[in-house]
Amino acid sequence: MLNKQLSLDEVMNLVVEAIESINISGTPKELYEPINYILSLGGKRLRPALVCLSCDMFQGEVASALHAAKGIEVFHNFSLVHDDIMDNANLRRGKETIHEKWGNNVAILSGDAMLIKAYDFVLQGKYKDLSEVLTIFNQAAIEVCEGQQLDMDYETQNEVTVEEYINMIRLKTSVLLGAALKIGAVISGASEEDAKLIYDFGVNMGVGFQLMDDYLDAFGDPEKFGKKVGGDIISNKKTFLFIKAVELDESGVMNTWLDTNDFDEKEKVDSVKSVYKKTGVDLLCVKEMNKYYEIALSKLDLINVDEPQKKALRDFSDYIRKRAQ
Amino acid sequence: MLNKQLSLDEVMNLVVEAIESINISGTPKELYEPINYILSLGGKRLRPALVCLSCDMFQGEVASALHAAKGIEVFHNFSLVHDDIMDNANLRRGKETIHEKWGNNVAILSGDAMLIKAYDFVLQGKYKDLSEVLTIFNQAAIEVCEGQQLDMDYETQNEVTVEEYINMIRLKTSVLLGAALKIGAVISGASEEDAKLIYDFGVNMGVGFQLMDDYLDAFGDPEKFGKKVGGDIISNKKTFLFIKAVELDESGVMNTWLDTNDFDEKEKVDSVKSVYKKTGVDLLCVKEMNKYYEIALSKLDLINVDEPQKKALRDFSDYIRKRAQ
Repeated sequence: MLNKQLSLDEVMNLVVEAIESINISGTPKELYEPINYILSLGGKRLRPALVCLSCDMFQGEVASALHAAKGIEVFHNFSLVHDDIMDNANLRRGKETIHEKWGNNVAILSGDAMLIKAYDFVLQGKYKDLSEVLTIFNQAAIEVCEGQQLDMDYETQNEVTVEEYINMIRLKTSVLLGAALKIGAVISGASEEDAKLIYDFGVNMGVGFQLMDDYLDAFGDPEKFGKKVGGDIISNKKTFLFIKAVELDESGVMNTWLDTNDFDEKEKVDSVKSVYKKTGVDLLCVKEMNKYYEIALSKLDLINVDEPQKKALRDFSDYIRKRAQ
Repeated sequence: MLNKQLSLDEVMNLVVEAIESINISGTPKELYEPINYILSLGGKRLRPALVCLSCDMFQGEVASALHAAKGIEVFHNFSLVHDDIMDNANLRRGKETIHEKWGNNVAILSGDAMLIKAYDFVLQGKYKDLSEVLTIFNQAAIEVCEGQQLDMDYETQNEVTVEEYINMIRLKTSVLLGAALKIGAVISGASEEDAKLIYDFGVNMGVGFQLMDDYLDAFGDPEKFGKKVGGDIISNKKTFLFIKAVELDESGVMNTWLDTNDFDEKEKVDSVKSVYKKTGVDLLCVKEMNKYYEIALSKLDLINVDEPQKKALRDFSDYIRKRAQ
């Protein structure tokens, strides 16, 4: 008997309700208050949605998947808390970051507790093979750390290629989307081949998603973005835009900014953005993004389930692609 | 058929060999080099030894336990790396701490990767019930974070009772010893009652162990201690010695030091140590420590295995107790 397939909205409602019901209680409050604070700031809940969308597509029990989904979302938030310390970021989702509000030590330790709690949530589900679920989770988790280290390394490294950059965002952002989907597949007992395809769908989707995030960092609406617009430009982050602009810019403006440590932030952001426009790297970035989205969709096409079961994930892909166009 | 029981030396040799063989490879090297550095600094390897001693006492397969043992040791080292950032400690086992050598960001991220790798090691073992092993592990892991938070809270809180202090060290140090032993028991299929008794043995042993560590911080041999002697005194850490000295000291010297922020370190350490001696809290500390060791041994007595099987754990307890007497 086929389960009735859930719509994207139905899955999102289940996921948002599950995530919003998370309240990690315990003492001392100094440890737990920041955890509940960061989880309460919202976010798009993309990763937990992917666990459930994949599980439902392969006709598994979404109730089981919700535990793993919570684990993935808490893990993602842990990584944000620690990244924000390392990146010296003051704002997250338009609010003060934990280290800004409570100090670095609290942010380190609350982040650690979140990472441990992420495993707790995953453990609460009943799976055919817990070890397999955790192995996928762990592989992505360690790759997220590798991506973050590369991201930091590239800040002080002037020569970064587009390939290196794509590999970095694959690790830092995309593999967790792939893992979320693969865990949903494994929970549902999908074939190894389909589990691999849905993982590849997620990773390519994730690369496209991060390229758009970098685009929005420069060209997004400050009201909607939740982070400081131009933050990547100010910190010389070697994004696709940046790397291509250095390559194509004949005026030397990009290299001058690379070597200037003392500057007016608005002046630098405006100047670099005008190079981005002049060299057309804004359009190149959108083109590159679309390339990865197309690869992602080609993987989804190959998955061995009936087309109607893929509808919610296709709707999800459309939602992601449209967010800035 | 009974397994031949392993001696303490035999277990320690297996454990040290297993831990020393750990080489966590991967890129970027900026992430992995600090992990292998901290693991190479040695340490007493008490926690992994406890997993294996317990497993062997309950006649389980030590080869299986070694995976969990590695996980526990890597977790312990993760907690040291992050604690050293928070405590601003420059030395660990007589060598530079990671944050001192590579900076805070590297120490945060390498620590995160170690925490994830700890789960990887646990996952490599084959257990009857992986979920149970991980639940014990996770419970201890989160309590270690709670203990660290309390420890930090107490640094700026002038009124801390002995009970609060003992609860803090129970969380920060002892529960992981208890969990190491309980995981060894569960791997061997020990009864729930015995698993609880061995956990309690470990926790009480751990409280005694930490009381001795605090004692050594003030009165230990700087050559052997590996950390800065007097570090607790300098940072106003509310140890058993400190709390009891404030209670018993009629000269007001302790309270004066509490309120003095600008001081010569050697002068403060010498002055506080002389109050410790004068009030006799050094002897009280040893007495308190022995109380917990006795409780621990009474738990070991109750465990339902033949006395010869307990020999290696008894030898271990003797080794721990004797390290400073």
